[in-house]
Amino acid sequence: MRTGVWLIGGRGSVATTTITGALALRRGLVEPVGCVTVHPDLRNTALPPFADLVFGGHDVAAGRLAKKARLLASAGVLPDGLVTALEDDMDAVDAELRPVPSGLGQADLADAVAADLASFRRRHGLDRIVVVNVSSTEPAAAPDPAHASLAALESALAGASRDVLPPSSLYAYAAFRSGCPYVDFTPSTGARLPALAELAERERLPYAGHDGKTGETLLRSVLAPMFAMRRLQVRSWSGFNLLGGGDGASLAAPGANAAKSASKQRVLAETLGYQPDGPTRIEYVEDLGDFKTAWDLVGFSGFLGTAMRLEFTWHGCDSALAAPLVLDLARITAAAHRAGHRGALHALAFFFKDPLGPAEHALGAQWEALRAFVAGIG
Amino acid sequence: MRTGVWLIGGRGSVATTTITGALALRRGLVEPVGCVTVHPDLRNTALPPFADLVFGGHDVAAGRLAKKARLLASAGVLPDGLVTALEDDMDAVDAELRPVPSGLGQADLADAVAADLASFRRRHGLDRIVVVNVSSTEPAAAPDPAHASLAALESALAGASRDVLPPSSLYAYAAFRSGCPYVDFTPSTGARLPALAELAERERLPYAGHDGKTGETLLRSVLAPMFAMRRLQVRSWSGFNLLGGGDGASLAAPGANAAKSASKQRVLAETLGYQPDGPTRIEYVEDLGDFKTAWDLVGFSGFLGTAMRLEFTWHGCDSALAAPLVLDLARITAAAHRAGHRGALHALAFFFKDPLGPAEHALGAQWEALRAFVAGIG
Amino acid sequence: MRTGVWLIGGRGSVATTTITGALALRRGLVEPVGCVTVHPDLRNTALPPFADLVFGGHDVAAGRLAKKARLLASAGVLPDGLVTALEDDMDAVDAELRPVPSGLGQADLADAVAADLASFRRRHGLDRIVVVNVSSTEPAAAPDPAHASLAALESALAGASRDVLPPSSLYAYAAFRSGCPYVDFTPSTGARLPALAELAERERLPYAGHDGKTGETLLRSVLAPMFAMRRLQVRSWSGFNLLGGGDGASLAAPGANAAKSASKQRVLAETLGYQPDGPTRIEYVEDLGDFKTAWDLVGFSGFLGTAMRLEFTWHGCDSALAAPLVLDLARITAAAHRAGHRGALHALAFFFKDPLGPAEHALGAQWEALRAFVAGIG
Amino acid sequence: MRTGVWLIGGRGSVATTTITGALALRRGLVEPVGCVTVHPDLRNTALPPFADLVFGGHDVAAGRLAKKARLLASAGVLPDGLVTALEDDMDAVDAELRPVPSGLGQADLADAVAADLASFRRRHGLDRIVVVNVSSTEPAAAPDPAHASLAALESALAGASRDVLPPSSLYAYAAFRSGCPYVDFTPSTGARLPALAELAERERLPYAGHDGKTGETLLRSVLAPMFAMRRLQVRSWSGFNLLGGGDGASLAAPGANAAKSASKQRVLAETLGYQPDGPTRIEYVEDLGDFKTAWDLVGFSGFLGTAMRLEFTWHGCDSALAAPLVLDLARITAAAHRAGHRGALHALAFFFKDPLGPAEHALGAQWEALRAFVAGIG
Repeated sequence: MRTGVWLIGGRGSVATTTITGALALRRGLVEPVGCVTVHPDLRNTALPPFADLVFGGHDVAAGRLAKKARLLASAGVLPDGLVTALEDDMDAVDAELRPVPSGLGQADLADAVAADLASFRRRHGLDRIVVVNVSSTEPAAAPDPAHASLAALESALAGASRDVLPPSSLYAYAAFRSGCPYVDFTPSTGARLPALAELAERERLPYAGHDGKTGETLLRSVLAPMFAMRRLQVRSWSGFNLLGGGDGASLAAPGANAAKSASKQRVLAETLGYQPDGPTRIEYVEDLGDFKTAWDLVGFSGFLGTAMRLEFTWHGCDSALAAPLVLDLARITAAAHRAGHRGALHALAFFFKDPLGPAEHALGAQWEALRAFVAGIG
Repeated sequence: MRTGVWLIGGRGSVATTTITGALALRRGLVEPVGCVTVHPDLRNTALPPFADLVFGGHDVAAGRLAKKARLLASAGVLPDGLVTALEDDMDAVDAELRPVPSGLGQADLADAVAADLASFRRRHGLDRIVVVNVSSTEPAAAPDPAHASLAALESALAGASRDVLPPSSLYAYAAFRSGCPYVDFTPSTGARLPALAELAERERLPYAGHDGKTGETLLRSVLAPMFAMRRLQVRSWSGFNLLGGGDGASLAAPGANAAKSASKQRVLAETLGYQPDGPTRIEYVEDLGDFKTAWDLVGFSGFLGTAMRLEFTWHGCDSALAAPLVLDLARITAAAHRAGHRGALHALAFFFKDPLGPAEHALGAQWEALRAFVAGIG
Repeated sequence: MRTGVWLIGGRGSVATTTITGALALRRGLVEPVGCVTVHPDLRNTALPPFADLVFGGHDVAAGRLAKKARLLASAGVLPDGLVTALEDDMDAVDAELRPVPSGLGQADLADAVAADLASFRRRHGLDRIVVVNVSSTEPAAAPDPAHASLAALESALAGASRDVLPPSSLYAYAAFRSGCPYVDFTPSTGARLPALAELAERERLPYAGHDGKTGETLLRSVLAPMFAMRRLQVRSWSGFNLLGGGDGASLAAPGANAAKSASKQRVLAETLGYQPDGPTRIEYVEDLGDFKTAWDLVGFSGFLGTAMRLEFTWHGCDSALAAPLVLDLARITAAAHRAGHRGALHALAFFFKDPLGPAEHALGAQWEALRAFVAGIG
Repeated sequence: MRTGVWLIGGRGSVATTTITGALALRRGLVEPVGCVTVHPDLRNTALPPFADLVFGGHDVAAGRLAKKARLLASAGVLPDGLVTALEDDMDAVDAELRPVPSGLGQADLADAVAADLASFRRRHGLDRIVVVNVSSTEPAAAPDPAHASLAALESALAGASRDVLPPSSLYAYAAFRSGCPYVDFTPSTGARLPALAELAERERLPYAGHDGKTGETLLRSVLAPMFAMRRLQVRSWSGFNLLGGGDGASLAAPGANAAKSASKQRVLAETLGYQPDGPTRIEYVEDLGDFKTAWDLVGFSGFLGTAMRLEFTWHGCDSALAAPLVLDLARITAAAHRAGHRGALHALAFFFKDPLGPAEHALGAQWEALRAFVAGIG
């Protein structure tokens, strides 16, 4: 099963790490550390092998992929030797990374993206393409009546000179029109609009999101259930996230920051059943580069009100945590599509900070749902 | 259902907090914070209500319970006002706390304990008594052929001037002979001997243990599964536990320390499937009093070998974390006994660092097992 | 030498702790832990003894001092038994705490404050009174031409219906007019106006400030010099301050927050000689009560660019850290006044986050200056 | 002034980083980050320039220096590009690294070391050589009457087949006999024997040590004075040191561990004036490689006994912290020798965990002593 993976933001850190890793796996140079789909509970021959994934994508930035990979190597994200060994393979992928067409209205842009997808599919003889958004976080989109139905959307796109959709949603629209499943690894709007849900349904396509769970929220999704199961009373839960890199700069912008912080607090409120006191902040610290440091302080009470505390510091590399999940999501979504699943894949909540569908934020329960879903594919 | 709770170590910090809390619950002065059995998933009318629990016990120490409670209050473990409000109730329990009989051989000691249990049952018209060991940790017991079968044990006890059983096991023996279920909240040997398993089976009694999960191991039981589910490679996991109070002094003694450290590392190895590098140490710091500080450092690798770190500090009060679990265990074990369960209660692994039976150390899975068990009672 | 200490914010947490502690010292119930002036290097008989300090003050709040002290005791700030032992002494101080006169223009208010000071002096036969501001932090004052000279100020006060001075400065004005030295323990404007410097000079009065150094900045004032002496390159220094209590609420307000954060960053820039990357934030977490948690992350480079990290968490009680310094400042400032010092006391930088005069932020150097100053008094 | 630096343990991590860094400084490829002697307060033209330092040494290990440097580069200690740029320069130093002569008695070994030093001096036309011990930590030496005087030592060396001196002291002996100052960067015995003090005095040679201050103790030397100056009562101070690399393995051995832990606690006791409760432990965690993580927990009381806490985590690279100090020590010791200083250089306490001479552990005071000493040279 030849499966294409089309990365929006294809030259960014996450995409570059994803591609480098997939190429290294294909050559047998590394183990699939951090890939959930190799867990004994999730193995299923219905998932396309890592080696069968073919990469392409769009990016507003230019610049050779191997050069970007070298930058990541010098930042400690991946080993320098790997870039040397894979330079030719990377150049081959480079040829599949298209610039984002410029100067077009959104209807024409959607057509151009669809054309790129069709050409990619044809040239590689692909059975299907999964479109994955790993570009920078957008500000929250303004409400628009054109988002309410597919008919309203298509009419607005046809007529409008203005931008009807945020970029992530335009890509979801183009993906669905091209018969491709769509995964949003960012907190952006993506497929979360009634008009796009309607289109996905019509085209019998699955989609997944939002916002890959790679740090503080991952920890919260196991620690908050622990407090809940033990009936300990969480009085305050404060979190500070220091991020470097491009992601840090865009997330520290007030709009994106507010959206992300809100989603982080929601995990706590929904797991505990009440909202503890305390802020969650995201700050940009350029010097951290591709790494991210999160510090959380939890004040809680036990029996008879005794005050206690838990504190943690997470020092992680977002790209190294995200990339294997991108491969996992591509494999599972492709298999789900082939097996006839359509609409929002609620069972993939394990991967996301802000999952689609009814919220279940405890990692253990999310794992069970994922396991059952993967076992039932194919 | 009038249920007795017989506490071995009945004047220690855990017992005093347990009794104070139960009395406060009976008077409606506090909420059952930290009590697992009030979780919506675990509510079951087959469990005896908190208000129906009647307390007694043994202790080598003397001294008024209310005085001990005042000491705990001044250490921040419980509110001073509660002691004032409950002073008379505590004095009533005081009358049920017996000294450990001295100068007796073990056979006679077992008889004396059994007589105390019988008298406690009779005076209070109890349906059953759950014996719970919350005394100080013993050094690991030396192997002894007399432990291999009930016949060998009884013959050895009958003949010996020497001590055949460690104290925790002698109490389990006396409990079983008196028809009482036994719970070991400590890492001591307790009921974990073939001879005692045989006796429990003969008397159709359930038992549970070992070593209440109140801090570092509780966290490890949610964090290690997180790393396992995400297929991240844990390279080192180091832990330092600073304990004050009497428990700290006895655990920092080399024998007890080694046993406890080994059980802590086992949780990691069994959850991850491999033993990460790094020590786990327990140290005594008198100044910490009834509190405990644990610091863990986890070094792990992601995709392509990127090095990352997680660090946590837990500052908890052992008594405040243990006491509500003692009440939970008494309630569940009493109900299990009434419902005809016998032998080791594997489904109670949620409560313990070193659970009886086939090891499942992930807290989420332990919760599921507990939920199903409690739902099935009565 | 009978010395009055007039506390602006005399019923707040810092004032209550200061008064309780001074009364306890007078009765010999406690040791002067946290009092710098008992350090062997600073002992000087020219300083008025703790037992000779007499307390009074203003507060907008009412409510018995002993009651406030009981609240602090229940929050773990001071021992409950102390309040019981000192209840009568506290009631005596209570009689010296005046409400802030209301409904007056600023000229009349200054007169009313001066009258209260005069009456306090007379009734207790005081040699001098040190006025200390321990009230809540004000927003930064707007620039005003009336602040530029004493003549402009007095003319503006005489004519104006509007408020010419922020409250902290009005108190400094009233103090100086009454012949009293003034200490500002808060970040508010206080005596930092040319008009007030002129008045202090004319009245030959010393003054000191600003913003008592009780937590994160205290640590920064020893850690930043360490990095500087070792020529390690600090690449980022991020700090998060979680505060409860009334102080937290007022500092987390954007205006006060910005002022305080800026002063915190200045310590780093002036000590290191460059401004490292990274934010300093102040957040309000009601649940922390009178305690404050600060977390700092320092990313630094060593020889050949190796990346390293230092992280600290400070969990302190502001009142318990501030109160002994208030006593120290009262003792030193009183002795300095008696010895003829006037104007800004630069040598007291040791006590402050944002010291008056040419900046020296390294704690060691500040200590040397303080030692020399105290040794030279009297 | 051509100055030789003879490194005992010349192929270890510290030596390799020292040499690589000095070569890089000579080529102008890096800035002297972490070098104390470039601090404006310490600049003195009497110190030999970095570029004039010539390296040689002994090591029991063989293997090309550039290869060792590449290993350090892959561990993140230094940049890979630097090794490439300096490969030829490193090979030139390689030729000056001698194996430790084997199969000799200690008298003959001392002669062989002296001959190597003489040859090194001659071939490079050196004005002087500073011998610096950067080899692995030895276990504490057993007391021996032969250590008591130079006469006893020389007679014992002449007669004995047994080892009279620990290796570090034998090197100090050989250095002094060759007219070379000696610096011990390790906790080993080195020159700390009466016999060797006598020899240094006779030869008019200075020496310095012990145990370079590169992590936890560096922090303690600024934090303990802070608590002392503020008269806060430190109730417990616990420390855990996790070390990888060869140093970790040898320090975690019980003998070396005990010596090092004792010296770490001494800093606290001597600075605070009392010994706080709490352990200091050193543990080996192979996975940490050349990095070291130290975690300290300080429990302290403020005014009226309020309990507070400070916690820090230091994640440092020992080689990157030590190497620039080795260069500083070589420069200062060479200049001191030239200026006629002899005996133990107490003024160099700033650099050491366990400084020679009357103990002053506060970093600020050590800095003052160092500044005055360097200013007075030449």
